[in-house]
Amino acid sequence: MAVTKNPQWRLAARPSGNPSKSDFQWVETDLAPLQAGQILVRNLWLSLDPANRVWMNDADSYMPKLNLGEVMRGSTLGVVEESRNRGFKAGDQVAGLLGWQKFAVSDGRGVNRLPSLPIPLEAQFGLLGHIGFTAYFGMLDIGKPQAGETLVVTAAAGAVGSLAAQIGKISGCRVVGIAGSDEKCRWLTDELGIDAAINYKTEKVSAALDRHCPHGIDIGFENVGGPIFEAILGRINLRARIALCGMIAGYTASRPVPGPPNLFMLITKRARIEGFLVLDYVNRFHEATAKLLEWHLAGKLKYRLDVVEGLENAPEALNKLFTGANTGKLVVKF
Amino acid sequence: MAVTKNPQWRLAARPSGNPSKSDFQWVETDLAPLQAGQILVRNLWLSLDPANRVWMNDADSYMPKLNLGEVMRGSTLGVVEESRNRGFKAGDQVAGLLGWQKFAVSDGRGVNRLPSLPIPLEAQFGLLGHIGFTAYFGMLDIGKPQAGETLVVTAAAGAVGSLAAQIGKISGCRVVGIAGSDEKCRWLTDELGIDAAINYKTEKVSAALDRHCPHGIDIGFENVGGPIFEAILGRINLRARIALCGMIAGYTASRPVPGPPNLFMLITKRARIEGFLVLDYVNRFHEATAKLLEWHLAGKLKYRLDVVEGLENAPEALNKLFTGANTGKLVVKF
Repeated sequence: MAVTKNPQWRLAARPSGNPSKSDFQWVETDLAPLQAGQILVRNLWLSLDPANRVWMNDADSYMPKLNLGEVMRGSTLGVVEESRNRGFKAGDQVAGLLGWQKFAVSDGRGVNRLPSLPIPLEAQFGLLGHIGFTAYFGMLDIGKPQAGETLVVTAAAGAVGSLAAQIGKISGCRVVGIAGSDEKCRWLTDELGIDAAINYKTEKVSAALDRHCPHGIDIGFENVGGPIFEAILGRINLRARIALCGMIAGYTASRPVPGPPNLFMLITKRARIEGFLVLDYVNRFHEATAKLLEWHLAGKLKYRLDVVEGLENAPEALNKLFTGANTGKLVVKF
Repeated sequence: MAVTKNPQWRLAARPSGNPSKSDFQWVETDLAPLQAGQILVRNLWLSLDPANRVWMNDADSYMPKLNLGEVMRGSTLGVVEESRNRGFKAGDQVAGLLGWQKFAVSDGRGVNRLPSLPIPLEAQFGLLGHIGFTAYFGMLDIGKPQAGETLVVTAAAGAVGSLAAQIGKISGCRVVGIAGSDEKCRWLTDELGIDAAINYKTEKVSAALDRHCPHGIDIGFENVGGPIFEAILGRINLRARIALCGMIAGYTASRPVPGPPNLFMLITKRARIEGFLVLDYVNRFHEATAKLLEWHLAGKLKYRLDVVEGLENAPEALNKLFTGANTGKLVVKF
């Protein structure tokens, strides 16, 4: 094995507010020879996701919290360099939670061999994988769109949001996206074909929702929380479904962000808010892969990558998710 | 027709905070002779419900707001005195939203003839009707209890809460009730057979929930909102269901009560909050009547009336709901 050095980012401190570079420590470890059953993976792409920030807190969520000193957790795409596990062979392309590091040694659990598909490897982050599947199951299973309904997506120019919005269009909905810049809004309407987009930084969201949702809101695909969520709740229709995908407004807050004061709307409208996680749909990933790929190849479902070059830039890049600086899927290319 | 005077309470002002007597005006109107198609009902019982306060606000909810000067809206039980409507005859016992008044003239729409049942007329408020049906459908259709699950009911000594808690027991759940006095808590555990009760006025609710729900919370039957709701959300299990029945903590607040800051728990636990209204279940009322009656006659489902004598005392009695002074179903006897 030629490889001996493994550069990696470890969690050095619990951030308060936005994550900063000082919350991470750059370490180069020595790789030990593989033991029986192990594989060595060279990571090629790292996914940066809002949930990464949640994992840095001193509290378990749907995953155990990270301990200080651990390699930062993250979804990766890579290639098997060496295998002593009969489930893998050198050259296999794999996806896994293999962390913010150039190489990973794994016993293969939780590492998935990727099928050969007519799309680039990194589309596993932009179109498929945890991003595409979150949009697919959240939209279809929790949102349950019917043709003619009105869907509002927050963080609509984000990785999941932009796919969810397009799946809403494919389902026959009127789709209104909320995003944080005019450029993002233009991308949503002009390139993705979303019916209307609201720039929450320059427009009054309540008034804009009134204008763009003249028949109320049937489905919310919620990534943000905070006042925008309240504005959406205030306009829901009878039996509305809010698919709760994320609440990024709260992830970097130093004190708890209050929930919406108008939850009574759920009673008035016999509506529901339902949280979901892509992890629960593992045995339907093949279904989602087939549909997402079909829509993409037919030109109905586009994705965009926001590529940061070099693992060394990952800590600063993570911040883009919380300042709204990224459009589409934020990834690190090794 | 011997009757000519009709004493009634009209909405005189929009309350801020708790409703007070000065928000109502006592009027005695003259009853005109019935026209073709009309019935004259003598009200015998008036239901006082938390939702009454919501109807007094200057905003539509699931029902249109009341206008100033209108007879105060309320559920009543009464007897037909005179009928010029072929759907009713004198002597029929009826239920309807016939308001805070001694007599009501109606065209019969929304007025239901009550079947002859082996229970007192006022059990239509304590056990059946909007109270019993709310508990029945909210618990079974929204809460979806499974034997062995843990259910937490807030305002558990209230009209709906006390039935919901017992239906939880009938469904095989461990049931924990939250109420506002030791006397209410004793009633829940000693008379209704609820597993544990928490006095939120003297106990720390979070610690008490930890103690009484060692395996977490699978179902919430939520009547209150506010910090108690937050404590419940913080302890939910995977795929928990929160049946949102009411949010009384907010009904008399002069400014919006923030929602729970921990809605992210819905994602962590893939759980849902769902609002419901008994109005949606009209075509299953016969099913609920049969089951509630069966359970009651078998001694498994008890109700308690908190009886206020005299329509003239209704405005002050309504306040008991917001100060927590009532146990069981608050009613006015004419």
